[in-house]
Amino acid sequence: MTSEEAAGRRGNAAGASARNKSSHYVTMREVAEAASVSVATVSLVVNNKPDARISAETRARVHDAIRTLGYRPNALAKTLVSGGSRFIGLVTDAIATTPFAGQIIHGAQDEAWKHGFVLLIANTEGNEDAEREAISMMLEHQVRGVLYSTWYHRAAEVPKALQETDFVLVNCYSPARDARAVVPAEVQGGANATRLLLREGHRRIAVVNTTTPSPAHDGRLRGYREAIEEAGVAYEPSLVFDARPDQEGGYGVAEELLAQNPTAVFCHNDRVAMGLYDGLRERGLSVPGDIAVVGFDNQEVIAAHLRPPLTTVALPHYELGAAGIQVLLGLAETAGDGRLEIDCPAVERASVGPAPAPAPVSDAMGRRPL
Amino acid sequence: MTSEEAAGRRGNAAGASARNKSSHYVTMREVAEAASVSVATVSLVVNNKPDARISAETRARVHDAIRTLGYRPNALAKTLVSGGSRFIGLVTDAIATTPFAGQIIHGAQDEAWKHGFVLLIANTEGNEDAEREAISMMLEHQVRGVLYSTWYHRAAEVPKALQETDFVLVNCYSPARDARAVVPAEVQGGANATRLLLREGHRRIAVVNTTTPSPAHDGRLRGYREAIEEAGVAYEPSLVFDARPDQEGGYGVAEELLAQNPTAVFCHNDRVAMGLYDGLRERGLSVPGDIAVVGFDNQEVIAAHLRPPLTTVALPHYELGAAGIQVLLGLAETAGDGRLEIDCPAVERASVGPAPAPAPVSDAMGRRPL
Repeated sequence: MTSEEAAGRRGNAAGASARNKSSHYVTMREVAEAASVSVATVSLVVNNKPDARISAETRARVHDAIRTLGYRPNALAKTLVSGGSRFIGLVTDAIATTPFAGQIIHGAQDEAWKHGFVLLIANTEGNEDAEREAISMMLEHQVRGVLYSTWYHRAAEVPKALQETDFVLVNCYSPARDARAVVPAEVQGGANATRLLLREGHRRIAVVNTTTPSPAHDGRLRGYREAIEEAGVAYEPSLVFDARPDQEGGYGVAEELLAQNPTAVFCHNDRVAMGLYDGLRERGLSVPGDIAVVGFDNQEVIAAHLRPPLTTVALPHYELGAAGIQVLLGLAETAGDGRLEIDCPAVERASVGPAPAPAPVSDAMGRRPL
Repeated sequence: MTSEEAAGRRGNAAGASARNKSSHYVTMREVAEAASVSVATVSLVVNNKPDARISAETRARVHDAIRTLGYRPNALAKTLVSGGSRFIGLVTDAIATTPFAGQIIHGAQDEAWKHGFVLLIANTEGNEDAEREAISMMLEHQVRGVLYSTWYHRAAEVPKALQETDFVLVNCYSPARDARAVVPAEVQGGANATRLLLREGHRRIAVVNTTTPSPAHDGRLRGYREAIEEAGVAYEPSLVFDARPDQEGGYGVAEELLAQNPTAVFCHNDRVAMGLYDGLRERGLSVPGDIAVVGFDNQEVIAAHLRPPLTTVALPHYELGAAGIQVLLGLAETAGDGRLEIDCPAVERASVGPAPAPAPVSDAMGRRPL
């Protein structure tokens, strides 16, 4: 929000049209008021989201307001010129409980600085009152907009107070698809992880999925399935296990997993892989000699330091934060559904080896091939 | 810094004494100017640091300026009343490279909020230009003061720009002892870890120290030594090993460590303990049955999830951040040397068992005690 917007919110008597007669910089908020819609809706219309669930009538109303008020969507340049707000807000539900959130902050902060903005950060532990207070503080400080981020990728209820300003969801999304969101590409990541195993000839690939319902649960499994089917391998539900998404989960699933004789395992995350390593080791199996293992997350203190170092797929937390700022500033576009998906790249280390050669088949004379 | 201070910095023509004639709130910065010393020096004198290396003459000059200007050190109450700065700055050298820094931010943020302040955060990756730019931005935003924090406890060169405002070092300290600092109590932590082992009857306790020169290297070893000597156990340098402070270091030291026949090991951190677990396991030794292991850090994703869960000592990152804010706001006192040490509490899990009974000694008749 610019200082003009703040003045308006504080009860400036002049209406939007009156203010427009001066050299006043028209804001998205004023367009929203004039069209009787939320700022988020204006943002979706302005950024050309054909698939967003906005009626043609509403779109027309927004476009009318834009024309009437003379709104120019490139707020960044305007703000830079007008010397308006230098702040962007970042509301997170948890810095405390995960090493990950820090990377989202880091990416957002670097990108904000690059464009001359300072990040105001509030950690709310998911508490609604704290969220309201944080967002209200940010509005008072005339933020250009707010990133609302969660520590794991999930559906989020968009706090009402966010509608007062321009905002972008990071690592979460609104199920109603009425807000722009930057999220990890779970399907692509799951396919990426699976292809690391397929490439080495593995065909019997188990999946240790999480017991937590989440986009990661559904998306990574879908990616796995797409990748194996693309490689001509049939999907076998008996190879898919659900386990707690931590070391204990990975350790506990070893027995039933091995009963299915996989040659490779795609784990929901690196912590699961770490626990599975222990479970395999206790049964005298070595990684990657006896069984290949791929993780997910590329978690800082774990993945590179397991024995053997873990091949995995990175959750792009830094990039999520940076992209959130870019979307907020109009420097990056979201897709038709209002989402921008960030790729999860493969990080290859030492836990994947070639699949064992298929058991030799005797020919009619009982001779085996050399 | 308050808005009055900022006005002064921007070249307000009125001198400090002139300004004092109005109801103007006198700032630490004005005292510093009047006494021709740094803000940090005023802060040390005001907070009664008898051991700080400040000459009696300088102290007298500061006290004169305080009397002349009518300075009242409780800036917090003043700021709240005057409606001055609502910001506190936090400059960190790395959010990216460690899961820990987030906890310092979290503690600082919670404590700042509690007192009605908002945290402005800048991550500089230790780059001097970025530091200068960040601090200068914070001064422009009229921060009440700045926390300068590092991701591991170390000596730090205080950036010159910090002298423009009130500041507190967090997780680092100035070797010249000319700045207030909140740091983890390494000696106490090392003693704490060692006592967890002594209490279970261990007497032959190895130490895997770090190869990195640091307060943690020296302090934890000193704590170990104090604890064993207090328990009547002689210090044996052959039981002390240096290793890389990660999993690879702990794994690599297993062989030579076992050659000294310890019944217990105090590891420099949890990552070292994780690697040592692997090294011990490969040699058929079980924890805690054959050997007890204690870590340090209580690192989120590791300590509780090793097999067995690791008994360790927590690095109080959250508390460091919170205490930094308290010191800055005059709500907590540093010790005579300008430092406030935060305790490292024990976190007991399952990697420490009783020491093996001493080998039975035959009596003169060749009989062994029952």
